[in-house]
Formats: sequence, structure tokens, C-alpha cells
Amino acid sequence: MDIKPYKRHAYYYETDKMGIVHHSNYVRILEEARVDLMTQLMIPFREVEARGLMIPVLGVNLEYKYPLRFDDEFEVDCRIEEFNGCKFTISYTVFNVTEGKLSLTAQTKHCFTDERLIPVRLKKKQPDIYEKFEEFYKRKDDLS
Amino acid sequence: MDIKPYKRHAYYYETDKMGIVHHSNYVRILEEARVDLMTQLMIPFREVEARGLMIPVLGVNLEYKYPLRFDDEFEVDCRIEEFNGCKFTISYTVFNVTEGKLSLTAQTKHCFTDERLIPVRLKKKQPDIYEKFEEFYKRKDDLS
Amino acid sequence: MDIKPYKRHAYYYETDKMGIVHHSNYVRILEEARVDLMTQLMIPFREVEARGLMIPVLGVNLEYKYPLRFDDEFEVDCRIEEFNGCKFTISYTVFNVTEGKLSLTAQTKHCFTDERLIPVRLKKKQPDIYEKFEEFYKRKDDLS
Amino acid sequence: MDIKPYKRHAYYYETDKMGIVHHSNYVRILEEARVDLMTQLMIPFREVEARGLMIPVLGVNLEYKYPLRFDDEFEVDCRIEEFNGCKFTISYTVFNVTEGKLSLTAQTKHCFTDERLIPVRLKKKQPDIYEKFEEFYKRKDDLS
Repeated sequence: MDIKPYKRHAYYYETDKMGIVHHSNYVRILEEARVDLMTQLMIPFREVEARGLMIPVLGVNLEYKYPLRFDDEFEVDCRIEEFNGCKFTISYTVFNVTEGKLSLTAQTKHCFTDERLIPVRLKKKQPDIYEKFEEFYKRKDDLS
Repeated sequence: MDIKPYKRHAYYYETDKMGIVHHSNYVRILEEARVDLMTQLMIPFREVEARGLMIPVLGVNLEYKYPLRFDDEFEVDCRIEEFNGCKFTISYTVFNVTEGKLSLTAQTKHCFTDERLIPVRLKKKQPDIYEKFEEFYKRKDDLS
Repeated sequence: MDIKPYKRHAYYYETDKMGIVHHSNYVRILEEARVDLMTQLMIPFREVEARGLMIPVLGVNLEYKYPLRFDDEFEVDCRIEEFNGCKFTISYTVFNVTEGKLSLTAQTKHCFTDERLIPVRLKKKQPDIYEKFEEFYKRKDDLS
Repeated sequence: MDIKPYKRHAYYYETDKMGIVHHSNYVRILEEARVDLMTQLMIPFREVEARGLMIPVLGVNLEYKYPLRFDDEFEVDCRIEEFNGCKFTISYTVFNVTEGKLSLTAQTKHCFTDERLIPVRLKKKQPDIYEKFEEFYKRKDDLS
């Protein structure tokens, strides 16, 4: 399974009066990339929620390297850094393709829960999702 | 009952690369003012939803007159223009207090529905909300 | 020149507690489609601004028909309804592809200005942009 | 000088389909609180920019503890954790007043730059701003 980076151009409304994409919007871009990753892993988020699973965000860490400007094309690469069957960490790099520069590095922390937000052992409750997730997680070292 | 205009300053993240509040954010500002109006009318939105009532937006119309810039103070005045017991129209003026200029005029159209989005006759289903709403509606001519 | 509709999926962060795309986000979606249209017309917005032209929004009118939900695919069709060499109106339809339903109809009003926001006669100041714009405008009747 | 916490209610449009304030919006709330802090310190952001100073965001770190829901009142406390005359770190706690729970802890990293984004020694370039900033920084230990 070949995971493709998530790609789009920066929208006009994402800019602020400094003329660059406002720093808050990167959190949204990471979510877009994460949703796209899940779809590529054949675990579409929509289905995850339909099965009564939630994936709340526990933490976000962002380091800004170089701005995105209006209409700049960017690519987001995602990798699962840690996964213990319930909690996991995704790391991201956002690359400004138009400028040829690294724009952002980031990590987000999550866990799988049921609808009451009680943590769930994925292997037991949703073994097919567990398998796909685990498989991608194990490939992290090949991607370095 | 004295209805006060809704007031705040424009946020930095609401600006765009033209250096002014992005035109999409006025739709959000109108919602803030509408929620505040409902609270002042003693029909807090939170309670409306708790009773199983929904108030979807059917239409929005905006005329931009003068921009808001970062930190500009603004005031929003709301008035119920039409109300037939189910559908209603609210009109708004957004005034840039810092610059002493009219910033925007707008109207939003709504209806009261149940949770399946079926229109509801408010007088029959929620007579106390109907009374408060109707009373404010009738005062529209005094406000001119 | 064949203009393609603008297409994407609704983002998670565009939804609100009603479970549907928040009504304010359609104004942003229209901007995305407008920027895409300009690129397809070979008048990329970025270049327009580089030439010292501004295209402020004078008015927006939205009629909501059917919601978009998370991950729904949608298409936006744009058409220039009016153009007098300076002011113009674009009309839009947003179609929920996933549900097979019309989601929104809308119009936005604009004018071409210089950087001090003084209206500009496009034909005189930027004749090449005028030609492309006028050509697309004239095709509106073929598109009906 | 008594610094008051930043306060407001959560807006409807800040919620997502989980029924809680979307995690990206906390980055915006922190900015609101930071701008308010600067105003209280008598260094309004507007004036900072008018003097040709920029304060870009270098990093953001967020730990989510308990959600905010629509209309929940919240308070944000800010403290300058580190300051070397150019770079600084602000730490934040967001408290859900309605629920009586800690909602978020966070840090943001910044530096003072000129308009070309070249770092600036504040003490030399803007000594009056330096004094106010340093004074508040020194009080961090009293606040513990």
C-alpha cells in the first residue's frame, strides 16, 4: 500500500493581515491530512464514526519553519510514530512546494474511544481496523 | 425590555491579506449577535435546543459598506423584520465604532423546526417562546 | 475553453454541532470556486493582485437548499451573470454529489479597483484581463 | 498592575459535529487572550505593528483536558514563562467556568522581529516596550 502525501493550495481566506496563512489554520490542515491518510489506509473516518468509535485529539505540537502564502501549493506527509493499541501519535511535515521549503513539523496525539469517550482496546473491539493501523505503524521505520 | 447592541473588537485571525476582516466572518458575527439577542429576549439558544427546537438558516444576504480592521470595535443591531409563527427574517446593521462608519447591512432567514427539521408552529408547540418572540417582533416599528 | 466545476470533500472542521457544514463556510467555498475559476480563465488571482488590481466583495446572497455533511463530495458551478467593465456578479450552484442534491444557490457582487479601492475601467487599464473576462461572460447564455 | 483573565463564551460556529469546540479554535482563543494581555500591559498589538515590530508565532503546544461546549463561559490566564529580550514563551490555562473544569494548558513561542522578520533586540530598539514586558515577565514567580 502506497500512501500519497496530502496536497492542495492555500486558500485566500486562510491568510491574515501579515499576508501569510494564519498559524491556527495548520491545525486544520493537519486534520485534512489525517482524514486523507485514514481513507488511504482503507479506514475512512466516516466509517470509524459509524462504528461508534471516536478519535479525540489529546494534544497538538507545532513548529513553524516557513510560511505558506495564498495559492502556495503544499504537501503533508504523515507517519504514525507511536501506537499502543489505543493511544497513538502522528507526526507531520508540511512542505511548501511552491517555495521549495519545509513549512511546518508537527505531532498530534489521539486515542480511540467509544461514544462516551471511554478508551477502547482496538485489537479486541475492532480487529480489522487494528490490523490496518498496526500495519502502517510498523512501516514507520521503512519510511525514514 | 431594553435590547442592547452586540459589541466586540475584531480579532487578528479574522483579517485576511487585504488587511481587513475577511468577508466570510461577518456571517459568524451575525450569528454571535443573534445568539446574544436570543439570550437578551430570555430565550437562550441553549434552552431552545434542549427543548428539541432547531433554527436552521435558510438564507443570508450581506451588503458590505466599509471594512472592519484588526481591533476595530463594532456594534451589531438586530431586528425581527418578519415572523409568521414559524419562519422569520432578522435584519442587522454592523457599525464600525472605531471609524464611525456603517460597515454592513444584512438579513438572515430562518424557521423553527423539530429535530428532524420539520417546520413547527411555535404558538402551539412552545407558546412561551412564541410570546417573547412575537413581542420583540411587534416592537420593530417603534425602533425605526 | 472548457470550465470545469470546482470539486472537493467537506472537511471535518467545517461541521458544527448540528452535524452539518456551518452556514458561514459556504462563503469560503464560493471564494475557493471563484479563485479556481479565475485560474481556469487564465487570470490567476495572484497575478491580478500582482498587477495592483483588487476585487473586493460588495455583496453576498445565499439560499441554503440541502446540507453538506462531513466528507460529502460537492461541486460548484460558477457563471458571470453581469459585467459592465468594472462591476460584476457571479452566480453559483453548489451540488452535493454524495447525496445527489442541490445544496446551495448564491450570488456574489464585486468590482475591479486599484489598490486604493478606486473603481477601475478594466478595458482601459488591463485589456487582456478584460478580454478573457468578457469572453466568459458572453458565454453565459450558452450555459443555460 | 493587575492583569485580568480573558473571558468570553464559546460561539456556536466554533463547535464541530462532536458537539464540542473544534480543537483548532483553541489556537485562536489563545491569540485573543494574548492580544488582550498586550492591551492590559499597555503595549497594544496595534501600536506594536504601527512601530514596525512583528511578533510571529514560532511554535504552539496544546494539551486538551476537558472540552468547551457551545455557550460555555471560559477564562484564559496568561503568563510569560521565558524572555531573553527577543524570544519569549507564553503559557496559558483555559478554564471552563460553566463546568468548573480545567479545559486546556498551552504554550506559544514567539520572537520580536522587524518587518522583514529579522529578530530585534527589544531593549535597544523599543526600550519602553521592553520595560513593560520585562516587568510582567519578572512577576511570573509571584503568580505561582
